[in-house]
Amino acid sequence: MSKEPMAARRSAASRAAILEAAFHLVGEVGYGKLSIEAIAARAGVGKQTIYRWWPSKGAVLFEAVFVRSFGDTENPAPLPDTGDLEADLRTVLRATALELADPEVDRPLRALTVAMLEDEALAREYRTRVEEPTREAKRARLRSAQRAGQLPASLDLDAAVDAIFAPMAQRWLHRAGPLTEEYADALLEITLGGLRRSGPN
Amino acid sequence: MSKEPMAARRSAASRAAILEAAFHLVGEVGYGKLSIEAIAARAGVGKQTIYRWWPSKGAVLFEAVFVRSFGDTENPAPLPDTGDLEADLRTVLRATALELADPEVDRPLRALTVAMLEDEALAREYRTRVEEPTREAKRARLRSAQRAGQLPASLDLDAAVDAIFAPMAQRWLHRAGPLTEEYADALLEITLGGLRRSGPN
Repeated sequence: MSKEPMAARRSAASRAAILEAAFHLVGEVGYGKLSIEAIAARAGVGKQTIYRWWPSKGAVLFEAVFVRSFGDTENPAPLPDTGDLEADLRTVLRATALELADPEVDRPLRALTVAMLEDEALAREYRTRVEEPTREAKRARLRSAQRAGQLPASLDLDAAVDAIFAPMAQRWLHRAGPLTEEYADALLEITLGGLRRSGPN
Repeated sequence: MSKEPMAARRSAASRAAILEAAFHLVGEVGYGKLSIEAIAARAGVGKQTIYRWWPSKGAVLFEAVFVRSFGDTENPAPLPDTGDLEADLRTVLRATALELADPEVDRPLRALTVAMLEDEALAREYRTRVEEPTREAKRARLRSAQRAGQLPASLDLDAAVDAIFAPMAQRWLHRAGPLTEEYADALLEITLGGLRRSGPN
């Protein structure tokens, strides 16, 4: 066995330990008290190992959240496409509600939001690597519905993506109400059918 | 002239100077570099004057944004109610787009968002003094439309408020696209009419 593969394996293990440590630590102490020192101690590596790969605690946190969301790929999973747009969006919105309501996810995501608001470079990286590919996956599902004649061909796809997904994200951000499957369903009914026709009467 | 009114006037003038200084300073340096010292220097008051009224730079910033939004009252202005729901919501959404696109407003609001994400007490104060009264003003306009038979009586008013207003806020937060009157109109068409019927065809 040559030396290289061993070093690469060690490197990958250190990297995984750092990201895991950052994710859990920020959930415990919040972003303000997160530090490279504490991440290093939790991961059992030296500070310099972290600085070799990432310039700031925000960058480590970004990578930790990214890897948890996208796994080893650089692309988000496509949205389900069973041919039933309403059922597929319901599946995604309900899953989003439950995920955001999970404290394990909530705190790292809030911390990442702070990091991005404070660091324009990180915000750009988020837009390029997360927001834009995720948005494209959503647009692709809506395009499929357009081809199936379920949505108008002239629909503004970006406004449509915002209308479907933004209300859940804002309610989470401002803790403005419960994140439940019922809320997901109420939103979807409004977005698909329109306010004027919403509700059972 | 007694001593009290003079002291009260001085106090009010100091308070206004502090809030004005905080608002502009955060626009120049960002929240991370905002400090009570710098606010005091800009306002021409002593640090202790600020600490007498507010516990943190986040709390000063909150008050500065609050006073700019609500003026001297503790209540937001009601939404326009001309009897034409669509026209009234268009007025409000277009104005919101232009306001959020204004760098003078954008930076202090981003700073306040960071402050609230980092400080749970401030987030609670925001919910009580800003989010809830503003939401009630929006619900009131929708209730008026319900009484006029323009919206279903069974509509989930909170989900409806989110569906109408959250997409603009979320696009602003993530700088996910331009904040324009055209975007406001596209959102409103989707929210009122429903995705399925949206667009000219």
